[in-house]
Amino acid sequence: MSRSYPRPLTTPAASRTPQRGTTRPFVSLLSDFGLRDPSAAIMKGVVLGVAADANVVDISHEVDKYQVRDGALLLWCAVPYLPVGVHVAVVDPGVGTERLPLAVRTARGDTLVGPDNGLLLPAAERLGGVSSVHVLESTEHRLPVVSSSFHGRDIFAPAAAHLALGVPIGALGPALEPGSLARLDWPAPSVGDGRLEASVIYVDTFGSLKLAAEGDHLRSAFDDPPPGTRLRVAWGHGRGLREVEAAWVETFGRVAPGEPLLYEDSYGRLCLAVNQGAASQALGIARDMPLRITRA
Amino acid sequence: MSRSYPRPLTTPAASRTPQRGTTRPFVSLLSDFGLRDPSAAIMKGVVLGVAADANVVDISHEVDKYQVRDGALLLWCAVPYLPVGVHVAVVDPGVGTERLPLAVRTARGDTLVGPDNGLLLPAAERLGGVSSVHVLESTEHRLPVVSSSFHGRDIFAPAAAHLALGVPIGALGPALEPGSLARLDWPAPSVGDGRLEASVIYVDTFGSLKLAAEGDHLRSAFDDPPPGTRLRVAWGHGRGLREVEAAWVETFGRVAPGEPLLYEDSYGRLCLAVNQGAASQALGIARDMPLRITRA
Amino acid sequence: MSRSYPRPLTTPAASRTPQRGTTRPFVSLLSDFGLRDPSAAIMKGVVLGVAADANVVDISHEVDKYQVRDGALLLWCAVPYLPVGVHVAVVDPGVGTERLPLAVRTARGDTLVGPDNGLLLPAAERLGGVSSVHVLESTEHRLPVVSSSFHGRDIFAPAAAHLALGVPIGALGPALEPGSLARLDWPAPSVGDGRLEASVIYVDTFGSLKLAAEGDHLRSAFDDPPPGTRLRVAWGHGRGLREVEAAWVETFGRVAPGEPLLYEDSYGRLCLAVNQGAASQALGIARDMPLRITRA
Repeated sequence: MSRSYPRPLTTPAASRTPQRGTTRPFVSLLSDFGLRDPSAAIMKGVVLGVAADANVVDISHEVDKYQVRDGALLLWCAVPYLPVGVHVAVVDPGVGTERLPLAVRTARGDTLVGPDNGLLLPAAERLGGVSSVHVLESTEHRLPVVSSSFHGRDIFAPAAAHLALGVPIGALGPALEPGSLARLDWPAPSVGDGRLEASVIYVDTFGSLKLAAEGDHLRSAFDDPPPGTRLRVAWGHGRGLREVEAAWVETFGRVAPGEPLLYEDSYGRLCLAVNQGAASQALGIARDMPLRITRA
Repeated sequence: MSRSYPRPLTTPAASRTPQRGTTRPFVSLLSDFGLRDPSAAIMKGVVLGVAADANVVDISHEVDKYQVRDGALLLWCAVPYLPVGVHVAVVDPGVGTERLPLAVRTARGDTLVGPDNGLLLPAAERLGGVSSVHVLESTEHRLPVVSSSFHGRDIFAPAAAHLALGVPIGALGPALEPGSLARLDWPAPSVGDGRLEASVIYVDTFGSLKLAAEGDHLRSAFDDPPPGTRLRVAWGHGRGLREVEAAWVETFGRVAPGEPLLYEDSYGRLCLAVNQGAASQALGIARDMPLRITRA
Repeated sequence: MSRSYPRPLTTPAASRTPQRGTTRPFVSLLSDFGLRDPSAAIMKGVVLGVAADANVVDISHEVDKYQVRDGALLLWCAVPYLPVGVHVAVVDPGVGTERLPLAVRTARGDTLVGPDNGLLLPAAERLGGVSSVHVLESTEHRLPVVSSSFHGRDIFAPAAAHLALGVPIGALGPALEPGSLARLDWPAPSVGDGRLEASVIYVDTFGSLKLAAEGDHLRSAFDDPPPGTRLRVAWGHGRGLREVEAAWVETFGRVAPGEPLLYEDSYGRLCLAVNQGAASQALGIARDMPLRITRA
């Protein structure tokens, strides 16, 4: 995985928020299980059956099916704002095959639990990097019967609950060399003088287009352009070439409804959006399409 | 905002339910962020990072994008049935512009937290009315870095958590005159003798049509018609004129599957529905369309 | 209801998971209310207004509208993995009519709360069977005003909260004879020598097809075929006859992406799926269609 997802914020916000009142074990859950089927709730029930006093938060269970990179991105977004705890992520097309079930301890003190397919590593880096990795082998910290197709329920959720209660990570199974973990391909931006190329890495539920570049890449390519600077965004080739002018602004309300804008989202990522509209639909741009940004 | 959303129930149900066992800080969340993106979960994580012992309930994060009035309606429906607490609502097309971030204290003792765009006021009225309003300016009760596009995470969620823990509302920022707050346009019904006109204010997930009128408006227009009275509902004009006969009944099961009905929903609102069907699809009626109800 | 939903696992997993740390009252919620409307959150708020210390978990609120059998199936899947507690299920086309509101106590010690329309009984059987049934009549354990269309809020949620706090089931209302409860039609498989016929009982959010048969039915029909055995699945008739070959395997990753597979899901149910695809779309098979499985 090339280091092209945004750098950790210098001060991850949540880690500086003082805890008031009591603390409780914290477990977050992310998957592509959807919310119609009971799978996500079953994971939560298994956690609470072991750790009844845990706060359990669903990050998302609507990750596009089998889209490991989307899951990795959403987890990366969320973890700095969550309490230190155990974060379970299951986007796992290889369930039941040889891919290993992992617990990844990070520098901030969180533990990431999920399959060894790259899903956990961007978030781990966001939390200060990997300090240790263990394979989830302990039968004592699994359900009594482990199925071939629902490790979220049978392996990951019970392991997370026990870790949240303070079971040492080493009790879950043998250590692994962090460098041996599977890594995701992650598209990198191309930054030139007056030119930035980056693909669409995610389309959010507003239809805004998250690019495989940071706001800082745009600042670098265009010499820190002042708010309001107009830029040209192009995509496609030949007869399919399309382009639009968009203002580089701080937030949606700085352009008229229906107008496109380029902005740095609240995670530091460069985005193309339409104020009060869906850029993906309005512009006909989908996930993974490469965009070229130049001066207007 | 004309006073045309239903009057508060004379005895909001939840406020009369005696608490058994312990009480805990209560925070509810409503937004148009959707459940695929991690934004809603991040708000919850920020709340629990400050107030680990809070009960945090998602009212809805699937409010139609940018539909402030829908958000206001759903919040209005929910709050009487929730424990006294802090209710955060974020449908906020003006995020990052000059619109103010608010905490609105109500007569029942709840605090509503969100943008000054009218979203909070119907719920405030439902909870006995506004007793004070403060602008969320205190940097001590925000995240360390405030973005331009995610005030739900950076301002509203931390403020709500601190309020839920008992921080005085005055500590969050200066007081505002309640009369100065932004208000929503809210469609009003027209009630005649044997005639009721009201637009569709919301289409629920069953496809039932919630009207901008209360059951009492129908009772008034038709002289308290007995259950089973047949009424004519018309919409459109000229060649687009459509109409349907519907029985005024107490609940769905009083008409055959597939048959239309007019009923007062469990919040006192007048609705047009189809038993075990979706009225919006079956009748081709959408949000904001005006309906005319007369005797059949 | 014929006894054709899978037998309870011999050792329901969650009941063997030892509780660590404290225990708390546990309430689960299932409905067809959807997540855009506030109805599900209102039920949760009502529960927490009575039992502030309860863990409340949403099994699903996206059950297909009015599909009582789907709701029964999802509840059946979930309950063995949830802590012993109170499980509220509301898929209730008969709300406000004469159908009774129930509390069903099971052998494991759980209480199922919902309408008398068959929704609760498969889960009750999964939890060891019905030990007693009471009608929810006590006005002390309802909201002060009971609507005609939202018993989830007015009757089921408050009853569940009081039960979770330890109110005796007999205090909720008079006992009913378990044999008098409404039962669902449940399709049964037809098992022959080298032949298995079963209809599609549920299409999950991955597009996988859950059949009205267990893995054991397939093992019986084909003499316990080894993993990798190829079988023929046919559906439709005459010119609409379609068929596909699928391998009987343990999990998705045992066939190539895009290839069909037959497998036993983690609840013991026989399923037809496509690795990293949606079988329902790829094969054009919908809910309730009968499938015929023979040797390839």
